[in-house]
Amino acid sequence: MPLVKIHVRRNIAEAALHAISGAVHEALVAEANVPPDDRFHILNRLDVHEIVAHPTYGGVNRSDEIVVIEITLNTGRTVEVKKNLYAGIAKRLETLGVRPDDVLVSLIEVTKENWSFGGGRATYA
Amino acid sequence: MPLVKIHVRRNIAEAALHAISGAVHEALVAEANVPPDDRFHILNRLDVHEIVAHPTYGGVNRSDEIVVIEITLNTGRTVEVKKNLYAGIAKRLETLGVRPDDVLVSLIEVTKENWSFGGGRATYA
Amino acid sequence: MPLVKIHVRRNIAEAALHAISGAVHEALVAEANVPPDDRFHILNRLDVHEIVAHPTYGGVNRSDEIVVIEITLNTGRTVEVKKNLYAGIAKRLETLGVRPDDVLVSLIEVTKENWSFGGGRATYA
Repeated sequence: MPLVKIHVRRNIAEAALHAISGAVHEALVAEANVPPDDRFHILNRLDVHEIVAHPTYGGVNRSDEIVVIEITLNTGRTVEVKKNLYAGIAKRLETLGVRPDDVLVSLIEVTKENWSFGGGRATYA
Repeated sequence: MPLVKIHVRRNIAEAALHAISGAVHEALVAEANVPPDDRFHILNRLDVHEIVAHPTYGGVNRSDEIVVIEITLNTGRTVEVKKNLYAGIAKRLETLGVRPDDVLVSLIEVTKENWSFGGGRATYA
Repeated sequence: MPLVKIHVRRNIAEAALHAISGAVHEALVAEANVPPDDRFHILNRLDVHEIVAHPTYGGVNRSDEIVVIEITLNTGRTVEVKKNLYAGIAKRLETLGVRPDDVLVSLIEVTKENWSFGGGRATYA
Protein backbone atom coordinates (compact mmCIF):
# COMPACT_ATOMS: atom_id res chain seq x y z
CA MET A 1 0.00 0.00 0.00
CA PRO A 2 2.63 2.55 0.18
CA LEU A 3 2.98 4.48 -3.05
CA VAL A 4 6.55 5.73 -3.08
CA LYS A 5 7.86 8.54 -5.26
CA ILE A 6 11.61 9.05 -5.39
CA HIS A 7 13.01 12.26 -6.87
CA VAL A 8 16.67 12.17 -7.89
CA ARG A 9 19.17 13.82 -10.20
CA ARG A 10 18.78 12.75 -13.82
CA ASN A 11 22.39 11.60 -14.13
CA ILE A 12 22.01 8.72 -11.70
CA ALA A 13 22.57 5.32 -13.31
CA GLU A 14 19.55 3.07 -13.71
CA ALA A 15 21.12 0.38 -11.51
CA ALA A 16 21.88 2.86 -8.74
CA LEU A 17 18.34 4.24 -8.90
CA HIS A 18 16.88 0.77 -8.61
CA ALA A 19 19.17 -0.04 -5.69
CA ILE A 20 17.85 3.06 -3.90
CA SER A 21 14.28 2.04 -4.63
CA GLY A 22 14.99 -1.46 -3.32
CA ALA A 23 16.57 -0.12 -0.15
CA VAL A 24 13.59 2.15 0.58
CA HIS A 25 11.29 -0.81 0.12
CA GLU A 26 13.40 -3.00 2.40
CA ALA A 27 13.19 -0.36 5.13
CA LEU A 28 9.41 -0.17 4.75
CA VAL A 29 9.17 -3.95 5.11
CA ALA A 30 11.57 -4.13 8.05
CA GLU A 31 10.36 -1.10 10.00
CA ALA A 32 6.81 -0.27 8.97
CA ASN A 33 5.09 -3.62 8.57
CA VAL A 34 4.75 -3.37 4.79
CA PRO A 35 4.29 -6.74 3.03
CA PRO A 36 7.29 -7.73 0.88
CA ASP A 37 5.13 -7.88 -2.26
CA ASP A 38 3.63 -4.46 -1.68
CA ARG A 39 6.06 -2.41 -3.75
CA PHE A 40 4.97 0.43 -6.00
CA HIS A 41 7.50 3.13 -6.82
CA ILE A 42 7.54 6.07 -9.20
CA LEU A 43 11.13 7.08 -9.93
CA ASN A 44 11.38 10.70 -11.02
CA ARG A 45 14.60 11.94 -12.60
CA LEU A 46 15.20 15.68 -12.62
CA ASP A 47 17.81 18.08 -13.90
CA VAL A 48 20.03 19.57 -11.22
CA HIS A 49 18.27 22.92 -11.35
CA GLU A 50 14.87 21.24 -10.92
CA ILE A 51 15.57 20.18 -7.33
CA VAL A 52 15.88 23.09 -4.91
CA ALA A 53 17.06 22.11 -1.44
CA HIS A 54 18.47 24.32 1.26
CA PRO A 55 22.04 23.19 2.06
CA THR A 56 21.76 23.08 5.86
CA TYR A 57 18.10 23.30 7.00
CA GLY A 58 17.35 20.67 9.66
CA GLY A 59 20.90 20.66 10.97
CA VAL A 60 22.48 18.68 8.16
CA ASN A 61 25.01 19.27 5.40
CA ARG A 62 23.16 18.63 2.14
CA SER A 63 24.81 18.07 -1.26
CA ASP A 64 23.60 18.05 -4.86
CA GLU A 65 23.02 14.33 -4.49
CA ILE A 66 19.86 14.74 -2.43
CA VAL A 67 17.24 11.99 -2.65
CA VAL A 68 13.68 13.13 -1.96
CA ILE A 69 11.35 10.30 -0.96
CA GLU A 70 7.59 10.82 -0.77
CA ILE A 71 5.58 7.97 0.72
CA THR A 72 1.79 7.79 0.70
CA LEU A 73 0.75 5.13 3.22
CA ASN A 74 -2.03 4.11 5.55
CA THR A 75 -2.41 6.04 8.76
CA GLY A 76 -1.72 4.41 12.10
CA ARG A 77 2.06 4.09 12.34
CA THR A 78 3.39 5.35 15.68
CA VAL A 79 6.01 8.04 16.03
CA GLU A 80 8.44 5.30 17.04
CA VAL A 81 7.77 3.34 13.86
CA LYS A 82 8.25 6.47 11.78
CA LYS A 83 11.54 7.24 13.51
CA ASN A 84 12.74 3.71 12.85
CA LEU A 85 11.66 4.02 9.24
CA TYR A 86 13.65 7.23 8.70
CA ALA A 87 16.70 5.70 10.35
CA GLY A 88 16.27 2.45 8.42
CA ILE A 89 16.01 4.21 5.07
CA ALA A 90 19.06 6.39 5.77
CA LYS A 91 21.12 3.44 7.00
CA ARG A 92 20.34 1.34 3.93
CA LEU A 93 20.94 4.18 1.49
CA GLU A 94 24.28 4.86 3.14
CA THR A 95 25.47 1.39 2.14
CA LEU A 96 24.74 2.48 -1.46
CA GLY A 97 26.83 5.61 -1.15
CA VAL A 98 24.04 8.07 -0.37
CA ARG A 99 24.97 10.29 2.56
CA PRO A 100 22.33 10.26 5.35
CA ASP A 101 22.24 14.05 5.22
CA ASP A 102 21.04 13.78 1.62
CA VAL A 103 17.98 11.68 2.45
CA LEU A 104 14.69 13.59 2.75
CA VAL A 105 11.52 11.67 3.61
CA SER A 106 7.96 13.04 3.50
CA LEU A 107 5.05 10.85 4.62
CA ILE A 108 1.44 11.41 3.58
CA GLU A 109 -1.08 9.33 5.51
CA VAL A 110 -4.43 8.19 4.16
CA THR A 111 -7.20 5.80 5.21
CA LYS A 112 -7.37 2.23 4.00
CA GLU A 113 -10.38 2.88 1.79
CA ASN A 114 -8.24 5.14 -0.37
CA TRP A 115 -6.53 2.45 -2.44
CA SER A 116 -7.35 0.35 -5.45
CA PHE A 117 -4.49 -1.90 -6.46
CA GLY A 118 -6.25 -3.18 -9.53
CA GLY A 119 -9.36 -4.93 -10.72
CA GLY A 120 -11.48 -1.87 -9.97
CA ARG A 121 -11.72 -2.96 -6.35
CA ALA A 122 -11.03 -1.17 -3.07
CA THR A 123 -8.14 -3.40 -2.03
CA TYR A 124 -8.52 -2.96 1.74
CA ALA A 125 -12.25 -2.17 2.15
CA MET B 1 -11.25 20.23 -7.08
CA PRO B 2 -9.64 16.99 -7.66
CA LEU B 3 -6.06 17.34 -8.80
CA VAL B 4 -5.30 14.18 -10.74
CA LYS B 5 -1.83 12.90 -11.55
CA ILE B 6 -1.55 10.02 -14.00
CA HIS B 7 1.74 8.15 -14.31
CA VAL B 8 2.18 6.08 -17.47
CA ARG B 9 4.83 4.60 -19.72
CA ARG B 10 6.51 7.16 -21.94
CA ASN B 11 5.71 5.31 -25.15
CA ILE B 12 1.97 5.83 -24.87
CA ALA B 13 0.53 7.93 -27.71
CA GLU B 14 -0.70 11.40 -26.86
CA ALA B 15 -4.23 10.54 -27.99
CA ALA B 16 -4.32 7.40 -25.85
CA LEU B 17 -3.04 9.33 -22.84
CA HIS B 18 -5.72 11.97 -23.25
CA ALA B 19 -8.39 9.32 -23.62
CA ILE B 20 -7.27 7.83 -20.29
CA SER B 21 -7.34 11.26 -18.68
CA GLY B 22 -10.83 11.87 -20.05
CA ALA B 23 -12.08 8.51 -18.80
CA VAL B 24 -10.76 9.15 -15.29
CA HIS B 25 -12.51 12.51 -15.29
CA GLU B 26 -15.77 10.96 -16.52
CA ALA B 27 -15.66 8.46 -13.66
CA LEU B 28 -15.07 11.25 -11.13
CA VAL B 29 -18.08 13.14 -12.51
CA ALA B 30 -20.32 10.07 -12.65
CA GLU B 31 -19.36 8.48 -9.34
CA ALA B 32 -17.87 11.10 -7.05
CA ASN B 33 -19.96 14.20 -7.62
CA VAL B 34 -17.21 16.17 -9.34
CA PRO B 35 -18.47 19.05 -11.53
CA PRO B 36 -17.89 18.44 -15.27
CA ASP B 37 -15.78 21.60 -15.57
CA ASP B 38 -13.59 20.67 -12.61
CA ARG B 39 -10.80 18.93 -14.51
CA PHE B 40 -7.13 19.39 -13.68
CA HIS B 41 -4.72 16.64 -14.65
CA ILE B 42 -0.96 16.29 -14.63
CA LEU B 43 0.11 13.57 -17.08
CA ASN B 44 3.48 12.13 -16.18
CA ARG B 45 5.32 9.98 -18.74
CA LEU B 46 8.03 7.69 -17.44
CA ASP B 47 10.53 5.23 -18.84
CA VAL B 48 9.68 1.58 -18.23
CA HIS B 49 12.31 1.24 -15.53
CA GLU B 50 10.97 4.31 -13.70
CA ILE B 51 7.72 2.58 -12.70
CA VAL B 52 8.22 -0.28 -10.26
CA ALA B 53 5.08 -2.34 -9.61
CA HIS B 54 4.82 -5.77 -8.09
CA PRO B 55 3.26 -8.15 -10.66
CA THR B 56 0.63 -9.73 -8.42
CA TYR B 57 0.19 -7.80 -5.15
CA GLY B 58 -3.51 -7.26 -4.37
CA GLY B 59 -4.58 -10.43 -6.13
CA VAL B 60 -4.21 -9.19 -9.68
CA ASN B 61 -2.03 -9.93 -12.71
CA ARG B 62 -0.21 -6.71 -13.50
CA SER B 63 1.60 -5.93 -16.77
CA ASP B 64 4.10 -3.31 -17.92
CA GLU B 65 1.15 -1.22 -19.04
CA ILE B 66 0.20 -0.15 -15.51
CA VAL B 67 -1.54 3.20 -15.08
CA VAL B 68 -0.99 4.83 -11.68
CA ILE B 69 -3.63 7.42 -10.81
CA GLU B 70 -3.19 9.76 -7.84
CA ILE B 71 -6.18 11.89 -6.94
CA THR B 72 -6.11 14.70 -4.38
CA LEU B 73 -9.71 15.56 -3.51
CA ASN B 74 -11.91 16.92 -0.75
CA THR B 75 -12.64 14.64 2.16
CA GLY B 76 -16.16 13.34 2.77
CA ARG B 77 -16.74 10.67 0.12
CA THR B 78 -18.15 7.46 1.61
CA VAL B 79 -16.52 4.06 1.20
CA GLU B 80 -19.35 3.20 -1.20
CA VAL B 81 -18.58 6.22 -3.37
CA LYS B 82 -14.90 5.33 -3.40
CA LYS B 83 -15.68 1.74 -4.41
CA ASN B 84 -17.88 2.98 -7.22
CA LEU B 85 -15.16 5.36 -8.31
CA TYR B 86 -12.54 2.60 -8.53
CA ALA B 87 -14.93 0.37 -10.46
CA GLY B 88 -15.99 3.25 -12.69
CA ILE B 89 -12.41 4.19 -13.55
CA ALA B 90 -11.43 0.58 -14.29
CA LYS B 91 -14.55 -0.02 -16.40
CA ARG B 92 -13.97 3.09 -18.51
CA LEU B 93 -10.26 2.44 -18.96
CA GLU B 94 -11.05 -1.11 -20.07
CA THR B 95 -12.96 0.26 -23.05
CA LEU B 96 -9.70 2.00 -24.01
CA GLY B 97 -7.70 -1.21 -23.87
CA VAL B 98 -6.28 -0.82 -20.34
CA ARG B 99 -6.69 -4.04 -18.38
CA PRO B 100 -8.48 -3.50 -15.01
CA ASP B 101 -5.59 -5.26 -13.28
CA ASP B 102 -3.30 -2.50 -14.55
CA VAL B 103 -5.25 0.34 -12.92
CA LEU B 104 -3.89 1.58 -9.59
CA VAL B 105 -5.72 4.39 -7.78
CA SER B 106 -4.46 6.31 -4.74
CA LEU B 107 -6.68 8.93 -3.10
CA ILE B 108 -5.39 11.75 -0.91
CA GLU B 109 -8.10 13.64 0.96
CA VAL B 110 -7.85 17.27 2.03
CA THR B 111 -10.17 19.92 3.44
CA LYS B 112 -11.97 22.43 1.26
CA GLU B 113 -9.85 25.33 2.45
CA ASN B 114 -6.84 23.73 0.79
CA TRP B 115 -7.49 24.85 -2.77
CA SER B 116 -6.95 27.95 -4.81
CA PHE B 117 -8.07 27.53 -8.40
CA GLY B 118 -6.82 30.92 -9.45
CA GLY B 119 -7.15 34.60 -8.76
CA GLY B 120 -5.32 34.23 -5.46
CA ARG B 121 -8.56 33.18 -3.79
CA ALA B 122 -9.51 30.18 -1.64
CA THR B 123 -11.97 28.72 -4.11
CA TYR B 124 -14.19 26.95 -1.58
CA ALA B 125 -13.70 28.99 1.63
CA MET C 1 8.96 21.61 6.17
CA PRO C 2 6.88 22.38 3.22
CA LEU C 3 7.73 20.19 0.26
CA VAL C 4 6.68 22.17 -2.79
CA LYS C 5 6.12 20.73 -6.25
CA ILE C 6 5.65 23.16 -9.10
CA HIS C 7 4.31 21.90 -12.43
CA VAL C 8 4.91 24.17 -15.43
CA ARG C 9 5.24 24.11 -19.19
CA ARG C 10 8.52 22.70 -20.40
CA ASN C 11 9.36 25.78 -22.46
CA ILE C 12 9.76 28.06 -19.46
CA ALA C 13 13.28 29.41 -19.06
CA GLU C 14 15.34 28.15 -16.14
CA ALA C 15 15.64 31.65 -14.69
CA ALA C 16 11.90 32.23 -14.88
CA LEU C 17 11.20 28.89 -13.25
CA HIS C 18 13.56 29.69 -10.40
CA ALA C 19 11.99 33.11 -9.96
CA ILE C 20 8.59 31.42 -9.59
CA SER C 21 10.02 28.97 -7.08
CA GLY C 22 11.56 31.84 -5.12
CA ALA C 23 8.31 33.79 -5.11
CA VAL C 24 6.33 30.81 -3.80
CA HIS C 25 8.88 30.40 -1.05
CA GLU C 26 8.74 34.10 -0.16
CA ALA C 27 4.97 33.87 0.19
CA LEU C 28 5.28 30.83 2.47
CA VAL C 29 7.74 32.70 4.67
CA ALA C 30 5.70 35.91 4.74
CA GLU C 31 2.24 34.41 5.16
CA ALA C 32 2.54 30.90 6.58
CA ASN C 33 5.30 31.13 9.16
CA VAL C 34 7.78 29.02 7.20
CA PRO C 35 11.44 29.55 8.19
CA PRO C 36 13.50 31.27 5.47
CA ASP C 37 15.91 28.31 5.28
CA ASP C 38 13.12 25.77 4.95
CA ARG C 39 12.99 25.58 1.15
CA PHE C 40 12.58 22.31 -0.72
CA HIS C 41 11.11 22.45 -4.20
CA ILE C 42 10.65 19.91 -6.98
CA LEU C 43 10.26 21.70 -10.31
CA ASN C 44 8.42 19.58 -12.84
CA ARG C 45 8.47 20.59 -16.51
CA LEU C 46 5.78 19.16 -18.75
CA ASP C 47 4.81 19.28 -22.39
CA VAL C 48 1.76 21.42 -23.15
CA HIS C 49 -0.46 18.38 -23.67
CA GLU C 50 0.62 16.93 -20.30
CA ILE C 51 -1.15 19.62 -18.28
CA VAL C 52 -4.93 19.51 -18.60
CA ALA C 53 -6.72 22.46 -16.99
CA HIS C 54 -10.25 23.62 -17.56
CA PRO C 55 -10.19 27.16 -18.99
CA THR C 56 -12.74 28.76 -16.66
CA TYR C 57 -13.50 26.50 -13.66
CA GLY C 58 -13.44 28.49 -10.40
CA GLY C 59 -14.52 31.70 -12.10
CA VAL C 60 -11.21 32.55 -13.73
CA ASN C 61 -9.84 32.85 -17.24
CA ARG C 62 -7.02 30.33 -17.48
CA SER C 63 -4.33 30.25 -20.18
CA ASP C 64 -1.77 27.70 -21.35
CA GLU C 65 0.67 29.31 -18.93
CA ILE C 66 -0.89 27.73 -15.84
CA VAL C 67 1.37 27.10 -12.84
CA VAL C 68 0.24 24.22 -10.61
CA ILE C 69 1.69 24.39 -7.10
CA GLU C 70 1.35 21.46 -4.71
CA ILE C 71 2.47 22.09 -1.14
CA THR C 72 2.79 19.38 1.52
CA LEU C 73 3.00 21.11 4.90
CA ASN C 74 2.25 20.65 8.56
CA THR C 75 -1.35 20.89 9.63
CA GLY C 76 -2.55 23.76 11.79
CA ARG C 77 -2.69 26.80 9.53
CA THR C 78 -5.98 28.68 9.86
CA VAL C 79 -8.27 29.41 6.94
CA GLU C 80 -7.15 33.04 7.19
CA VAL C 81 -3.49 32.04 6.86
CA LYS C 82 -4.31 29.88 3.86
CA LYS C 83 -6.22 32.71 2.20
CA ASN C 84 -3.30 35.05 2.76
CA LEU C 85 -0.95 32.44 1.36
CA TYR C 86 -2.95 32.04 -1.85
CA ALA C 87 -3.17 35.80 -2.27
CA GLY C 88 0.50 36.22 -1.44
CA ILE C 89 1.60 33.62 -3.98
CA ALA C 90 -0.58 35.09 -6.72
CA LYS C 91 0.55 38.63 -6.00
CA ARG C 92 4.22 37.72 -6.11
CA LEU C 93 3.89 35.61 -9.25
CA GLU C 94 2.07 38.48 -10.94
CA THR C 95 5.18 40.62 -10.62
CA LEU C 96 6.95 37.89 -12.63
CA GLY C 97 4.39 38.00 -15.41
CA VAL C 98 2.23 35.06 -14.29
CA ARG C 99 -1.46 36.00 -14.41
CA PRO C 100 -3.24 35.36 -11.06
CA ASP C 101 -5.86 33.33 -12.93
CA ASP C 102 -3.09 30.94 -13.95
CA VAL C 103 -2.01 30.13 -10.39
CA LEU C 104 -3.42 26.90 -8.93
CA VAL C 105 -2.49 25.93 -5.37
CA SER C 106 -3.22 22.58 -3.69
CA LEU C 107 -2.29 22.06 -0.04
CA ILE C 108 -1.78 18.65 1.56
CA GLU C 109 -1.52 18.73 5.35
CA VAL C 110 0.42 16.23 7.43
CA THR C 111 1.53 15.85 11.06
CA LYS C 112 4.93 16.97 12.26
CA GLU C 113 6.16 13.40 12.77
CA ASN C 114 5.94 12.86 9.02
CA TRP C 115 9.21 14.50 8.03
CA SER C 116 12.84 13.57 7.97
CA PHE C 117 15.02 16.34 6.58
CA GLY C 118 18.17 14.29 6.69
CA GLY C 119 20.40 12.32 8.99
CA GLY C 120 17.81 9.57 9.36
CA ARG C 121 16.07 11.62 12.06
CA ALA C 122 12.46 12.73 12.51
CA THR C 123 13.19 16.44 12.20
CA TYR C 124 10.27 17.67 14.33
CA ALA C 125 9.60 14.74 16.68
